[in-house]
Amino acid sequence: MTIHILGFAGSLREGSYNRAALRAAQELLPEGVTLEIFDLSPIPLFNEDVEKEGFPEPVQAFKERIAAADALLIATPEYNYSIPGVLKNALDWASRPPGQSPLNDKPVAIMGASAGYFGTARAQYHLRQMCVILNMHPINKEVFIAGAGDKFDPQGKLADERSRKGISQLLLALKDWTRRLQG
Amino acid sequence: MTIHILGFAGSLREGSYNRAALRAAQELLPEGVTLEIFDLSPIPLFNEDVEKEGFPEPVQAFKERIAAADALLIATPEYNYSIPGVLKNALDWASRPPGQSPLNDKPVAIMGASAGYFGTARAQYHLRQMCVILNMHPINKEVFIAGAGDKFDPQGKLADERSRKGISQLLLALKDWTRRLQG
Amino acid sequence: MTIHILGFAGSLREGSYNRAALRAAQELLPEGVTLEIFDLSPIPLFNEDVEKEGFPEPVQAFKERIAAADALLIATPEYNYSIPGVLKNALDWASRPPGQSPLNDKPVAIMGASAGYFGTARAQYHLRQMCVILNMHPINKEVFIAGAGDKFDPQGKLADERSRKGISQLLLALKDWTRRLQG
Amino acid sequence: MTIHILGFAGSLREGSYNRAALRAAQELLPEGVTLEIFDLSPIPLFNEDVEKEGFPEPVQAFKERIAAADALLIATPEYNYSIPGVLKNALDWASRPPGQSPLNDKPVAIMGASAGYFGTARAQYHLRQMCVILNMHPINKEVFIAGAGDKFDPQGKLADERSRKGISQLLLALKDWTRRLQG
Repeated sequence: MTIHILGFAGSLREGSYNRAALRAAQELLPEGVTLEIFDLSPIPLFNEDVEKEGFPEPVQAFKERIAAADALLIATPEYNYSIPGVLKNALDWASRPPGQSPLNDKPVAIMGASAGYFGTARAQYHLRQMCVILNMHPINKEVFIAGAGDKFDPQGKLADERSRKGISQLLLALKDWTRRLQG
Repeated sequence: MTIHILGFAGSLREGSYNRAALRAAQELLPEGVTLEIFDLSPIPLFNEDVEKEGFPEPVQAFKERIAAADALLIATPEYNYSIPGVLKNALDWASRPPGQSPLNDKPVAIMGASAGYFGTARAQYHLRQMCVILNMHPINKEVFIAGAGDKFDPQGKLADERSRKGISQLLLALKDWTRRLQG
Repeated sequence: MTIHILGFAGSLREGSYNRAALRAAQELLPEGVTLEIFDLSPIPLFNEDVEKEGFPEPVQAFKERIAAADALLIATPEYNYSIPGVLKNALDWASRPPGQSPLNDKPVAIMGASAGYFGTARAQYHLRQMCVILNMHPINKEVFIAGAGDKFDPQGKLADERSRKGISQLLLALKDWTRRLQG
Repeated sequence: MTIHILGFAGSLREGSYNRAALRAAQELLPEGVTLEIFDLSPIPLFNEDVEKEGFPEPVQAFKERIAAADALLIATPEYNYSIPGVLKNALDWASRPPGQSPLNDKPVAIMGASAGYFGTARAQYHLRQMCVILNMHPINKEVFIAGAGDKFDPQGKLADERSRKGISQLLLALKDWTRRLQG
């Protein structure tokens, strides 16, 4: 059975390293795995008063694509030692309403790219804490693409072999973990 | 010298407990302290491509009000075991560009209200980690308003005496800490 | 197939609430589950120089009991907003040497009891972060026994029905999670 | 007025990089600053039953040296994505009994050295969370000595210029922060 992964990145910037890392993942898929990328740009700021009138269309679409996926791949930047507001906001919407979150019981892999030294490690641990209440199952394998300015070429292609290998292994681990959880 | 505090809440909901907690703080100010509340609603989602064309007006206003304040008071909800995307997004904007953040060297007090048991504790520790890179100086006193549904009256007034006392003490501690840091 | 759980508590105190919570768990086991309790008291402070001469006998015993278990149950106090040194020290020993940790790939459930408000929540999130590098698989269900002074009787028996139910459900979830991971 | 710093490292190993980093700090002191190093080796595992009979002598000595210091310098390894049990255990003892902790209101600087990539960053954020309840005041400057195997010479001297500069700046920032808090 093919495993369908939904991937999304926590940056809205066109030239985002994390969007580029997702595109790299599409080139590095193991056999029997597909990766669909969802663009978070149209998702508005969360407001419970707005939610009462129904989910905005892009939120509804996001929730549906999550529900249709067997597993998730999140590429997170690190802003101010945590995940970006943009990514947190999308997860806040996706988790609503309580008891009907499509994120529930999903296997997930987390990666991140940053210009700095740590490759978004701090953000990733915050994201993992969120997975507890979201009842997601993150794999323990980690991918940190540090010094991203030297690892992507000017066209936004991930050129660094070690990072490519890391993403390949992450995808393979996510495939195995998803199968294991599916039973 | 009067100490000017700028307060903001991480929820856009009209009836937000955290907005209500900020209003309670305005009733509980120690002598020699003012509290101005800033509404995060008009701040758009952060996008570095947008930033290159200049800060959106509400972001510019937010940055200016922070710069004019002696200290900050942040009232944070907890969504999915961290701070809301809305609050993180506002801080992401405020911190930009590197080297010119008005948050730099600001004393700050953190509080939070939630319907659940912990009064946003998990969110507050994430926020404290952000303060390291933002070079903010959070006071070690904490206010957790748990079970908020029973502590605010239908008009959104904080009726719980213990919570009111906690906020009073928080404000006093922030006043003292700000004076201490000002020398 | 019976599932064998190894449980240990992060406090050395005779009257420890967390030791008592483990004893309560022994009374609340689902069908097909056993729970063996390991006492961390004889485990010495970790020192890599000592390790070079071989594992101290209590450490060796701890590692063997972990290896023999299908899953783990950790009852952690909270000292200074994290897990006790005693518990961290035992995990530091158990994880050694790299590549031969018996903790690897173990399903684990975490619970905690404290006299204070949060029932060791802060400690539990630190412990969960450790599980990433230890490659353990914590279940997302949480048990926080707050105000423990009122919930255990003078003989150290967990008298609070809600806490007992929480532990029962935790054990059932651990059983299911372990079976799911075993395939 | 001279500022007296007490430093301690979270590893008991003779050849510990973090002990070596403390020795490097002694060579890099700004004017008007002294640094005394305390060895955590003789501090036993914390046990509240033992505490009732009085503090063990090494614990008493540790508490007295902390009390006599104007500021602290903690050099932490990272074991299993957090601070070592050895360091946590020493802090657990030092914090006792509630209301009489010599750690209260102390300025503190944190640094760390590790063979791996992150220079103990994950451990340092856990340590910072502990500072909230300990009411310590950590400076926001950080020192991460990653890849420590290449940065210390065979005699345990810190040879890497960039790391030495980082420690120098950390000590200077701690001096300034301590003066600022002393008023």
